[in-house]
Amino acid sequence: MTATVSRPVLAASYAAEHERLRVGVIGYGYWGPNLARNVATNPDSVLWAIADLSPRRLSAARDLYPLTAMTTDYTDLLRDRDIDAVFVATPPDTHHRVVIDALEAGKHVLVEKPLATSTEEAEEMVATAKRCGRVLAVDHTFLFTGAVKRMKEYVAAGDVGELYYFDSIRINLGLFNHETNVVWDLAPHDVSIMLHLVSEPVRRVSAFGARHVDTNVENIAYITLEFESPLLAHFHVNWLAPAKVRRTIVGGSKKMLVYDDGEASEKLRVYDSGASLCASREDMYRTFVEYRTGDVVAPKLDKTEALAAETSQFIRSVRGIEEPVSGGELGLEVVRIIEAAQRSLAGGGAPVEVVR
Amino acid sequence: MTATVSRPVLAASYAAEHERLRVGVIGYGYWGPNLARNVATNPDSVLWAIADLSPRRLSAARDLYPLTAMTTDYTDLLRDRDIDAVFVATPPDTHHRVVIDALEAGKHVLVEKPLATSTEEAEEMVATAKRCGRVLAVDHTFLFTGAVKRMKEYVAAGDVGELYYFDSIRINLGLFNHETNVVWDLAPHDVSIMLHLVSEPVRRVSAFGARHVDTNVENIAYITLEFESPLLAHFHVNWLAPAKVRRTIVGGSKKMLVYDDGEASEKLRVYDSGASLCASREDMYRTFVEYRTGDVVAPKLDKTEALAAETSQFIRSVRGIEEPVSGGELGLEVVRIIEAAQRSLAGGGAPVEVVR
Amino acid sequence: MTATVSRPVLAASYAAEHERLRVGVIGYGYWGPNLARNVATNPDSVLWAIADLSPRRLSAARDLYPLTAMTTDYTDLLRDRDIDAVFVATPPDTHHRVVIDALEAGKHVLVEKPLATSTEEAEEMVATAKRCGRVLAVDHTFLFTGAVKRMKEYVAAGDVGELYYFDSIRINLGLFNHETNVVWDLAPHDVSIMLHLVSEPVRRVSAFGARHVDTNVENIAYITLEFESPLLAHFHVNWLAPAKVRRTIVGGSKKMLVYDDGEASEKLRVYDSGASLCASREDMYRTFVEYRTGDVVAPKLDKTEALAAETSQFIRSVRGIEEPVSGGELGLEVVRIIEAAQRSLAGGGAPVEVVR
Amino acid sequence: MTATVSRPVLAASYAAEHERLRVGVIGYGYWGPNLARNVATNPDSVLWAIADLSPRRLSAARDLYPLTAMTTDYTDLLRDRDIDAVFVATPPDTHHRVVIDALEAGKHVLVEKPLATSTEEAEEMVATAKRCGRVLAVDHTFLFTGAVKRMKEYVAAGDVGELYYFDSIRINLGLFNHETNVVWDLAPHDVSIMLHLVSEPVRRVSAFGARHVDTNVENIAYITLEFESPLLAHFHVNWLAPAKVRRTIVGGSKKMLVYDDGEASEKLRVYDSGASLCASREDMYRTFVEYRTGDVVAPKLDKTEALAAETSQFIRSVRGIEEPVSGGELGLEVVRIIEAAQRSLAGGGAPVEVVR
Repeated sequence: MTATVSRPVLAASYAAEHERLRVGVIGYGYWGPNLARNVATNPDSVLWAIADLSPRRLSAARDLYPLTAMTTDYTDLLRDRDIDAVFVATPPDTHHRVVIDALEAGKHVLVEKPLATSTEEAEEMVATAKRCGRVLAVDHTFLFTGAVKRMKEYVAAGDVGELYYFDSIRINLGLFNHETNVVWDLAPHDVSIMLHLVSEPVRRVSAFGARHVDTNVENIAYITLEFESPLLAHFHVNWLAPAKVRRTIVGGSKKMLVYDDGEASEKLRVYDSGASLCASREDMYRTFVEYRTGDVVAPKLDKTEALAAETSQFIRSVRGIEEPVSGGELGLEVVRIIEAAQRSLAGGGAPVEVVR
Repeated sequence: MTATVSRPVLAASYAAEHERLRVGVIGYGYWGPNLARNVATNPDSVLWAIADLSPRRLSAARDLYPLTAMTTDYTDLLRDRDIDAVFVATPPDTHHRVVIDALEAGKHVLVEKPLATSTEEAEEMVATAKRCGRVLAVDHTFLFTGAVKRMKEYVAAGDVGELYYFDSIRINLGLFNHETNVVWDLAPHDVSIMLHLVSEPVRRVSAFGARHVDTNVENIAYITLEFESPLLAHFHVNWLAPAKVRRTIVGGSKKMLVYDDGEASEKLRVYDSGASLCASREDMYRTFVEYRTGDVVAPKLDKTEALAAETSQFIRSVRGIEEPVSGGELGLEVVRIIEAAQRSLAGGGAPVEVVR
Repeated sequence: MTATVSRPVLAASYAAEHERLRVGVIGYGYWGPNLARNVATNPDSVLWAIADLSPRRLSAARDLYPLTAMTTDYTDLLRDRDIDAVFVATPPDTHHRVVIDALEAGKHVLVEKPLATSTEEAEEMVATAKRCGRVLAVDHTFLFTGAVKRMKEYVAAGDVGELYYFDSIRINLGLFNHETNVVWDLAPHDVSIMLHLVSEPVRRVSAFGARHVDTNVENIAYITLEFESPLLAHFHVNWLAPAKVRRTIVGGSKKMLVYDDGEASEKLRVYDSGASLCASREDMYRTFVEYRTGDVVAPKLDKTEALAAETSQFIRSVRGIEEPVSGGELGLEVVRIIEAAQRSLAGGGAPVEVVR
Repeated sequence: MTATVSRPVLAASYAAEHERLRVGVIGYGYWGPNLARNVATNPDSVLWAIADLSPRRLSAARDLYPLTAMTTDYTDLLRDRDIDAVFVATPPDTHHRVVIDALEAGKHVLVEKPLATSTEEAEEMVATAKRCGRVLAVDHTFLFTGAVKRMKEYVAAGDVGELYYFDSIRINLGLFNHETNVVWDLAPHDVSIMLHLVSEPVRRVSAFGARHVDTNVENIAYITLEFESPLLAHFHVNWLAPAKVRRTIVGGSKKMLVYDDGEASEKLRVYDSGASLCASREDMYRTFVEYRTGDVVAPKLDKTEALAAETSQFIRSVRGIEEPVSGGELGLEVVRIIEAAQRSLAGGGAPVEVVR
């Protein structure tokens, strides 16, 4: 990695800051620039090097980060002893190899979602992290939004009561990915949110989808998850929707939470469930569900950029201060569910048991 | 003020209007008052009589319609030769008997949705209407809204192109019905809209649901319909949602329609699909779907109250001027699909073939 | 079906109900039908008679209210001893004469807004009501909405703190009135809400407007009210706005209320003002106003139709149970402010003192 | 400016790019970082140096732009012959001195709005730019948004017809500035948009405001502009509003434009004015304004970041390719109007003539 040789004098000021985590970013395509920016602006990390196969993309990166080493060979980063951790944003089917290489080279890893493209790979990655004693975190960014953090607090405090359903919509027009389908592309976001909030394991997965544009990949899918309890989770993911909708409803016996990411402010709203049935005197065959107070509250949310919070949390995990919020186990469970959904899709919607 | 003297005489003006359709309303509970009001205010009909089992409800009706006959026995209306047609808003499980009685008594019938609670019953009702030469219409009110009429025009004109998906959400908090579940209660609305727009027959139905409040009836359900083509239809119905959402997206190869009934105005929006894939130069594995013009249009809609338009359409059907928009055949197909959904629900989501 | 025989007899049930207030409606044009409907459906009133100059409109009324007397001469109602009260919905410039006639005939009066077209007339009407010992109420309907009632509670309880500003927008496309301008037509709604909430008297009025369509009447206007305190009230009224907006903000030292009538639900939202200044350490010349809790609350609102609540309140006023919420004095103050706005408009926006 | 001496070797790659405009940023407080980022990422400019009084802020800048020279003395930049242009984001009362110094030093200038704090100063600055033959542009950023560019196209093409009114709301909670009031802080944005769209000169300005938090500065104001024609422009600016609203309505004889910056997409909507009066048969005193087609269109907008477009436009102006969209003359006119508003505010709302 000869680039490091040519680092200018000013780099000394960075290197001198021994307490900053030195991070390399592998993959500088669609999402990598966001990872790089967050590493560069976090007070506790330094953007030490970037690896990407494309010299053109490296050139763009160099304009923004002239002191950062650039290479087309990601193994340069793994060999660089100055680097403590790598953020991996390469295509999903390369995660398995890159992440295992990095862990075995002693690097802590934050990898773009999904963790892997199969449960088998994901399990091996989690096991490798354990064996090497390194942090493996998966970039399920939404877990670090103010809205999801607040939802977690409500659920953890018991305010939502018994969980009834988790309903999620993530649809938009615009971005097609020919290497994978809409389920692998979008559903990991919502499945990770669901797993973050729900402690009960998923039992069965069913999925329906269709291919309208590219005959090889589904551009729309509906996924249903069943549990032991009557909790129901459902996901609508769609690459061909006219307008962007990203909305999650968590229905519980006490409260219902609506997280609408399209709202400029007031992204989260909390409603009383009022699930106490009360018979109408007049018509016994019709009953009204009563609101308790009926007030709707839009709580104040932490507005820190999710990726910034996630980067900081990763750094604290590496330093042993806390456990990763979005660690390998959660990433593995996401893959397990998506894989089951994929099998159900292939089987015409027949429900698939989740095996662990 | 002598006008008061002439009160009873005024009733003559009603009877004298021979050209008005004389309509009886059977069932004056939740929906019957709306039917009665529309009959009473339509210039081409007279509200001749109301039947309901409850004297208290009849008393409330009498306050509003002092010239209308009231009875607790609906067969009074069937025997009354002055009556041309009956509007039936009794509980669904009574539709079969009341409607067949009415048709056989020579009355034209508009019956509340769903037409019946089983395909077998519905088929018999349709056959009876045919045999008796009477109009049988089902009150799928939404077909008469300005938004659905406009959607029908777009689809019929080919503007939407090939139909890709029909996605519907009808959720709210409030009304529970212990005699039936949320599928039978809410899905007929959306299934009727779908059948109105889509000409292709439904092949398979799958449904998932859960019972959270009343252990006997589902309060949430997700229904998926499959066709021969890759068209996918999906319905989310829910009695336990925090806020009222009623939104339908029709995705096509040329245009996408979004019907959001919660919008004060601009209930319908039309988007370009832009489904022409164009490869991004930079990253061949990612492709952007391009908007064609990208302009969004909210067309002007007919604002006539749907039930008023439906009443007028029914009257024109009785007079032989046009076919019912929402006739017995469509009502039967709705029941067929709901029944299949019910079977899938009972079978844990296993897809059910629709048999005709 | 013998029920038809008993029809005329039913009228007796109305007359027999001695405890119901017998109400006549004068004026059955744009708003009168709403008044008539509310009188007819209120359990404590009877729609005894309707007067309108147009036989065609009376005929339409007769279809709906066959037992109600109809006349083209409103003095018939004033002579009818059976009538306790009249609801007046004639053109504004006739209010003075009709209302004074009615009061002097011993009738209680609810009159459409504005009370009169000049302060002088309004004062005489209020004095006449006092002299005759009859209730004079002005139909400022919005005071009876769930939202305004809740706003009143917040202000009265001191929750809003010191009142800083009252900002109102009432704009839409559609209805033009050639007898008056947009100020007289729309501003009384918002001025009445403001007077209902604010106890301090208005000191100065300024208004700017323009005539774009009809050269005789302003179709847009901006009105500013000043008080002794730094409270500022401002109104935007507009007949030529593309979309309907009806929104009021009440800014106070503790809370801010936003009443958006265009919201399907959550018409009222309550925000913390957080007006405690806190200097930013970094840049002394910039200060951030801090939210206290920052939570936004949309309180549950009474959903009773405003006109129904108003009719009931009027009946209770007539019975001496409570004072009118929207009595002659409030109606007079509205006229005084609108008249001052009109004078400012004529004077090119020069502020006009309000004289009492 | 000794910092230039220490520039690392990599700077050579920048210097070598002779065709890039070399820009210095003066003032790195609230807005300066945005200017710096846009200069740094624009392919046609280089961020050559940053000046700010605060060493702490310079240190933060150095982390992001290690190759850029940093200085606490802005005259260092004026003396640096490598620098072609400066972007000035110092407090408004320093604009006059800094900009004139820069122009006289031969630099092209883009200065934060408002151009100056008095008409006299602004006039001198415009004259100096002319005398020195340098580009003087004012950072009225909104002129470069996709929405305003599209509005300009509609107005310029005559689609809007005769302009009736320009109504603007810019309110929010949060940021207080003790050196100036809300009029000087927020109104320049909307006045610049208005001047960009309206060719007719402003004749009279009236303004009302109030001071609720800081007794020295107005935190709310309403400003009315009058023209020779019946065109009316009105601005509501407010630092103490509960929620952020930024909405502009342009009403014309043919079309009405609504620019709502709070909308996630569809920021601009175009409505038919339908200002053709048509008398209602029934009630001659009420007339309905008819929609022509009634369709609402939300045109596709250019989504380029406004500041990026503005930076590019400035560079093209410097290169003589086109005139500045937001040049000194427009900036001067904004100051002229704000100053008149300030005088009206001081005079209790009395209208003030605009003198040119």
